[in-house]
Amino acid sequence: MSQKEQNQQWLEQHLERVEAFLAQQMPSSQLPLQLHEAMRYAVLGGGKRVRAALVYAAGEAVSQNGELSSAQAKALDHAAAAVELIHAYSLVHDDLPCMDDDELRRGRPTVHVKYDEATAMLVGDALQPLAFELLASMPVAPALVVQAVAALATAAGSRGMVGGQAIDCASVDKALSLDELRHMHRLKTGAMLEVSVLLGGIVAGASSTARQHLMDYAQTIGLAFQVADDVLDVVADTATLGKTAGKDAADNKPTYVSIMGLEASQQLLLELKQQAHKAILPLGAGAQSLAALANFIVDRNH
Amino acid sequence: MSQKEQNQQWLEQHLERVEAFLAQQMPSSQLPLQLHEAMRYAVLGGGKRVRAALVYAAGEAVSQNGELSSAQAKALDHAAAAVELIHAYSLVHDDLPCMDDDELRRGRPTVHVKYDEATAMLVGDALQPLAFELLASMPVAPALVVQAVAALATAAGSRGMVGGQAIDCASVDKALSLDELRHMHRLKTGAMLEVSVLLGGIVAGASSTARQHLMDYAQTIGLAFQVADDVLDVVADTATLGKTAGKDAADNKPTYVSIMGLEASQQLLLELKQQAHKAILPLGAGAQSLAALANFIVDRNH
Repeated sequence: MSQKEQNQQWLEQHLERVEAFLAQQMPSSQLPLQLHEAMRYAVLGGGKRVRAALVYAAGEAVSQNGELSSAQAKALDHAAAAVELIHAYSLVHDDLPCMDDDELRRGRPTVHVKYDEATAMLVGDALQPLAFELLASMPVAPALVVQAVAALATAAGSRGMVGGQAIDCASVDKALSLDELRHMHRLKTGAMLEVSVLLGGIVAGASSTARQHLMDYAQTIGLAFQVADDVLDVVADTATLGKTAGKDAADNKPTYVSIMGLEASQQLLLELKQQAHKAILPLGAGAQSLAALANFIVDRNH
Repeated sequence: MSQKEQNQQWLEQHLERVEAFLAQQMPSSQLPLQLHEAMRYAVLGGGKRVRAALVYAAGEAVSQNGELSSAQAKALDHAAAAVELIHAYSLVHDDLPCMDDDELRRGRPTVHVKYDEATAMLVGDALQPLAFELLASMPVAPALVVQAVAALATAAGSRGMVGGQAIDCASVDKALSLDELRHMHRLKTGAMLEVSVLLGGIVAGASSTARQHLMDYAQTIGLAFQVADDVLDVVADTATLGKTAGKDAADNKPTYVSIMGLEASQQLLLELKQQAHKAILPLGAGAQSLAALANFIVDRNH
């Protein structure tokens, strides 16, 4: 099997793994039935699961001789599911009429279209504490659990993802500088990608040096992820993307492409990919999946 | 000073205490400025702070000889602030047009009226992780922190507060039985009142027996709180209440008064008060503030 096929297989295996864990952990036949059904609709059966993959890959990269204990492997499931729950809730709220007003997500009707606005609001409100519940039940030392909770809470909050969202909302029809755009995305998308890598490191007991390498990698791919999104919004079509293409331009939202141009954005992506690979060189062969994920983030077509 | 005056003084002191702690912990001059300003507007300068008071009172009730260590006292501040943040976020989202569509809260314009709907959504979304951030930084044993995070996450989620909210939304214009109404409120209001008491117990190192007494008390006052709310919606006026009186009846929402009648509801309140006092008798003199809070919840006029 080629390295590329191995990477693809690893990604599919871990996507299935977090999907099965989420399906098992999310309430189904419990009351209130409709809320739980809508929560499952919002979370299961879709998404690239990049954040979950980053958790697993970071955990592997820092584990002793590439071997995770079964408790650590289980804890990675919890952390991977937790970041996917936060991501899923943010999409549900982001799609609401008072925010981006999107009707299509991953090729399916958004939650408020499939159900109603009140349900979509409550789905998001309930997915968030479920993420912290999963972290709290990780089978690792309580001190590590506490570090993980603190990291996720900060990344999800007003100085992280939600803060970026607020800056994004306030920036429609405004000319942002490249620095302002970078700051907005660093919070809106970057914070959750970074904490995904960090959680993998925490759970697998990374040293402070290893954590620093992980964070260098994470910041680079966080930026790359957004640049790639902006490029895809221009070059991909709606069917491939699973959401409305060209929407940022139509909404008059600033993007890397609108500020730097398409060619410079594509060049930046290549540089970021190299930078990400370089950041994890000190972690050795265990970081193979992290390297593959950097490629995936830059080279994806959806 | 009479016992009643002492109780009043205790309540005021602890209200000031959590207010000062919240004011200090919530971001103010950090970016994004408007989001942080709106978060402070939603949380500070109002509210009965019943949940915070329950955290402190439960902590006192189970402390050794009524003495809390300074670390425990500090941890109670974190826990008290955390439950108030979750409560505040739930009110902000609950007031939105797609939910209760309220324009007045604590005598002031609601967050989406003062700012806009997108900001109100994001305020709620950011207050929730801030609550978990505060729990994660409690200066007590990590194992206790993990218990606290698990308890708060469960109480705030789909099998707790948000689940009750979903049942409430689905029950407009429906004739609920007394059991169904009780189940809805047990989740919607009861879960957060109960976890407030439980968090105080966890932080102060309550034994499992003491925790059981606390939970008996908490379930009773949880129910009493809602019955009192329903009675007040009928007998109080808008000015005293600080929110629109008679709104439940106007919205055709089932209440204890609409199902049991006013007199039977008032009688039930008196019985619940006695039951709450009885539950904490085994905890001795340290439980004085919990007893006073049971009286406050039943006898309040707003």
